[in-house]
Amino acid sequence: MAEKYQKFRELTGEIFDLDAVVSVLGWDQQTYMPPGGAQVRAMHIATVSRLWHEKLTGDEYSAALEAAREETADLDPDSDEVRVVRYMQREVDKWIKVPSEWVNEFKRVTTLAHQAWEEARAQDDFAHFQPLLEEIVKLRRQYVEYFAPYDHPYDPLLNYFEPGMKTSEVKSVFDELRPRQVELVQEITERGLPVDDAVLHQDFEESKQWDFGVEVIKALGYDFERGRQDKAAHPFTTSFGIGDVRITTRFDPKYLGTALFGTIHEGGHAMYGQGMSPSLDRTNLIDGASYGIHESQSRMMENLVGRSRPFWIAFYPRLQEYFPSQLGELDLETFYRAINKVKPSLIRVEADEATYNLHIMLRFEIEIALAENKISVADLPEVWNSKMQEYLGLTPPNDAKGVLQDVHWSSGYIGYFATYSLGNLMASQFWAKMEEDIPDLTNQIERAQFAEMLSWLRENIHQHGAKFEPMELLQRVTGNTLSVEPYLRYLRAKYEDIYKLA
Amino acid sequence: MAEKYQKFRELTGEIFDLDAVVSVLGWDQQTYMPPGGAQVRAMHIATVSRLWHEKLTGDEYSAALEAAREETADLDPDSDEVRVVRYMQREVDKWIKVPSEWVNEFKRVTTLAHQAWEEARAQDDFAHFQPLLEEIVKLRRQYVEYFAPYDHPYDPLLNYFEPGMKTSEVKSVFDELRPRQVELVQEITERGLPVDDAVLHQDFEESKQWDFGVEVIKALGYDFERGRQDKAAHPFTTSFGIGDVRITTRFDPKYLGTALFGTIHEGGHAMYGQGMSPSLDRTNLIDGASYGIHESQSRMMENLVGRSRPFWIAFYPRLQEYFPSQLGELDLETFYRAINKVKPSLIRVEADEATYNLHIMLRFEIEIALAENKISVADLPEVWNSKMQEYLGLTPPNDAKGVLQDVHWSSGYIGYFATYSLGNLMASQFWAKMEEDIPDLTNQIERAQFAEMLSWLRENIHQHGAKFEPMELLQRVTGNTLSVEPYLRYLRAKYEDIYKLA
Repeated sequence: MAEKYQKFRELTGEIFDLDAVVSVLGWDQQTYMPPGGAQVRAMHIATVSRLWHEKLTGDEYSAALEAAREETADLDPDSDEVRVVRYMQREVDKWIKVPSEWVNEFKRVTTLAHQAWEEARAQDDFAHFQPLLEEIVKLRRQYVEYFAPYDHPYDPLLNYFEPGMKTSEVKSVFDELRPRQVELVQEITERGLPVDDAVLHQDFEESKQWDFGVEVIKALGYDFERGRQDKAAHPFTTSFGIGDVRITTRFDPKYLGTALFGTIHEGGHAMYGQGMSPSLDRTNLIDGASYGIHESQSRMMENLVGRSRPFWIAFYPRLQEYFPSQLGELDLETFYRAINKVKPSLIRVEADEATYNLHIMLRFEIEIALAENKISVADLPEVWNSKMQEYLGLTPPNDAKGVLQDVHWSSGYIGYFATYSLGNLMASQFWAKMEEDIPDLTNQIERAQFAEMLSWLRENIHQHGAKFEPMELLQRVTGNTLSVEPYLRYLRAKYEDIYKLA
Repeated sequence: MAEKYQKFRELTGEIFDLDAVVSVLGWDQQTYMPPGGAQVRAMHIATVSRLWHEKLTGDEYSAALEAAREETADLDPDSDEVRVVRYMQREVDKWIKVPSEWVNEFKRVTTLAHQAWEEARAQDDFAHFQPLLEEIVKLRRQYVEYFAPYDHPYDPLLNYFEPGMKTSEVKSVFDELRPRQVELVQEITERGLPVDDAVLHQDFEESKQWDFGVEVIKALGYDFERGRQDKAAHPFTTSFGIGDVRITTRFDPKYLGTALFGTIHEGGHAMYGQGMSPSLDRTNLIDGASYGIHESQSRMMENLVGRSRPFWIAFYPRLQEYFPSQLGELDLETFYRAINKVKPSLIRVEADEATYNLHIMLRFEIEIALAENKISVADLPEVWNSKMQEYLGLTPPNDAKGVLQDVHWSSGYIGYFATYSLGNLMASQFWAKMEEDIPDLTNQIERAQFAEMLSWLRENIHQHGAKFEPMELLQRVTGNTLSVEPYLRYLRAKYEDIYKLA
C-alpha cells in the first residue's frame, strides 16, 4: 500500500540529502574552512548542486512524482502526502526551466564570491568583489529569462524566496508602509523624549556575551542537542534536517547589541527548523514556508520578544550579573529604552524597529533597478550612498559600512531582502493571534516561561515546514491576508510608550 | 588536442568532488556535529557515496576512461596522464565488483557506528557498540566475497588500504619482525638503565599544549592557510583537495604525550596531503600511494623526527618556556629519555616505538580471525584481553582501554592496522635514503630547519600522491624492496644509546 508514494519519498529523500549536503558545505565554508579551500570547495558545491538538479528534474523523478500523485489523489488535500507531492511538483516545474549548467555555474561563482565579499568587506574594497558580483548579476538576469514571460523581471527573483508573491504586491505594501513609517520616525526624532544608548557601547567581554546569548536562546527553546552555535562573518541559520539546525553569530566587543540580538534572531530561525514535523524529514518541505515566514519567526524572537519590556523583566537581572561593572548601576527602564533607541543608522542588522524597513526598501529598489538593467554593478556604491542619504539622511563613511555590509548578494540572494519586511508584518499578525490564544502571554514572558509560546508556534507554524504556501499559512493561522496594520499598531504603541509621544 | 583526456578529467573531477564531500561530512561528524545530527548525516553520507559509486562504475565514465586510455597510449608511461588513467582503471575494476547498494548501506552503518563507538568508549560499554560492529563485520564479509576467488579472505580487506599487498606477505614480514622486536624489548627491560617518565604525567594546561603543538607543526611545514586543527575523539587527518587538508587532535590534561605526538603524527599525514602536485588535483590520485605510505610519513614525523634528540635540541627550550613549573628544572637528556621510555602499555597510539608493532600484530591477528569467521564480534573483548596478555603482558582494566580504544572498526576500517607497521618500516627506509641525500640533516634539525627535509619529501614522495603504486614508489625512492633491516637498525641504535645496552 502506498508503494508508489514510498518510492517517491525515497527519491525525494535523495534530493533532500544533496540539498542538505550543499548546506553543510556552505556552513563549513563560512565557519571553519581555511582560505586555501575556497577554489576546490566551489567545485564540490557546484558538482553536488548540479547532481541535485539532475535528480530533481530527471525522468525517473518525474515518473515517480506522477505515480505518487495518482496514488494519493483521493487523500485529504491537507495530508502530508498530497502536500509533499504538490510541493515537489512545484519544485520540478520551477527547476526544469533552468539548465543544470546554470546551477553548476551559479553555485561555483557564488561560492567563490562569498570569499571575495568577506575579503572586500574586511579591506573596504568594493573593486575586489565587483567582478564576481557582476557575474552573479549576469547569471541572475539569465535566470530571470528562463521564466519569461513575466509581469516584471524581478518577479522570478522574488519568487525564489517568496513563492507566489509579485513585485507589484511588494511595491504596494511598501507604498502603504513607507509614509507611515517615515512619519513615526519623524515624530520620534522631533518630539520624543531623548533616549541615550551609550551604555550599550562599552567594553563587553566576548565570552560573556557568548554565554549570555546561549542562556537566552536555550531558555527560549533552542535545543543544543540538535544544533550548535559558531562564529561567522555574517550570522546565518542552516538546517541539515530537523536533528541538526545550526546558527552562527558575530561579536562586537564594544557594542552589546550585535551578538545579543543577532543570536536571538538566528535562534528564532532555528527553532522554526527544529520544530518541523518528523513526518516531513528528508523532504524539501523541511524548510520555511517562505523566507518571509522564516523572517517572521526570527524577527518575532528578536523584536517582539527580545526587545520587549516583559522579556527584560525576566533577563535583565541575569545580564547585570554577567556585566556588573557596565550595567550594575543601570535601571531596567533605562536599559529597555536604550535597546529601543530610534536613530537612523548605517547597518541594517543593527537598525531599530522604526527605521529597519527603510533599509529594506532601499535594497529592494536597488535590486529592482538591477533586474531592470537600469544600473550596473559598478554604479552600486554611488547608488547605495545616495539612497542612504534619501532614506536615512546618512552617507556611509566607506563601502564596508555601505554597499558591502550584507552577505546576501555574494550568495546570489538577489530578491531576498523584501522578505525581512514581510516577516516583520507577519510576525505582528501571528503575535496578535498568539496573544488572543494565550491571554497570559506577557506574564509568562516576564517569568521567562516560553514553553506555551513555543508550543503555539510549533502547533500553528513550525511543524508544517513548507507544507502550506506562505499566504495560505498566514490565512490559516490568523484568518487574515497580509496586512500592515497589526505591525504599525504594535510599532506605534511601543514607541509612544518609550518616547512619551501620546 | 587531448580532448578525450580532458573529458575524462572532467568526469574524474566530479567523482573526486563526491569523494571529497563525503570527507567533509565525515570531518564535521567527528568534530562539530550535534548528537541529533547523526541519523540524517548517515543518510547524507550514504546517498553521496552511492552516487559516487554510480558515477565511478557507470557506462559514461567507463567510455570516457577507455577513450582517454587510447588517446594517451603513446605518452611517457610515467606521465600524469597515463598514470591517472591507469589508477582510475584500477578503481573502476575494483568498485565495479561491489554493488551500489552495498556502498550505500556500508556508509550508512559506519556513520551510525561512529557515534555508537564514541558513546561506547566514553561509557566503557562494548555492548552498546556490538550490534553495529556486527553489521559492519557482516558487510565486510560480504565485501570480501565480491572479490572471490582470493588466496585469503583477508586479502581484499588488506588491499582496500594497501593495494597489491598479500596477507601472506604481511604475515611473513611480521614473522621476521616479531622475534627481533620482542628480543629488543626483553633486552631493554632486563638490562637497560631505568628510565623515568613521571615528568610527562603532570598537569599540562590544554591551551598551552595546543599552542606548542601548533608551533611545532608550523615549523615542520604544515600550512595553516591550507588546513586547520580541531579536536576529535580520535585524531585523524582528512583532505578535501590540496588546498584544504585538516588535522584533528585530542588532549590529556595529565599527560603531555597524547596531544604532542598525536599532533606531529597527523601533521606528517597532512604535509603529505598538502605536498601533492596541483597537476593531480581533483583526481583520486590526490591521496596517499597507500595507507602504508601515508603512515610512513606520519610515523616518520612522529618518531624519527619528533622523538629524536636533534629535534628536542631545537624545541626543548621552547617547551620549557611553555611549561616552566613542570619542566623548567629538567635537563634535555632526561626529557629525551622520558619520551622514549619503553614500557608495555595499553593504548596503541601512546605506545613507544619498541612495543608499537606488537599492538599492530595483535589487531592483525584478530582481524584475520574475523575474516576467517573463526571468532565473532561478541568474542572480541575476551580475545583482545587474552592477546594483550600474550603480547604485552597486560590485561586492560576495561574495554574502553582495550578493544574499544581505536576508531577504525567503527569506520569499517578492517584491514587498516597493518599499514602502521608497514609505515614504520618504510619510514626508516625513506629516512636512510634522505640521510644519504642530505648529509647535514641532523644539524638542520638541531637548528629547527626543516625546509630541505620537506623539499626532499615533496620531491621524492609527496608530489606523486597515488601516482605510483606503493612498492613501486618505495623502489623508485630507495632502490630497494620492503625490508625490516633499516627499521630494526634504527630502533636498536636508538635504544642501545638510551638504555646503554651496548
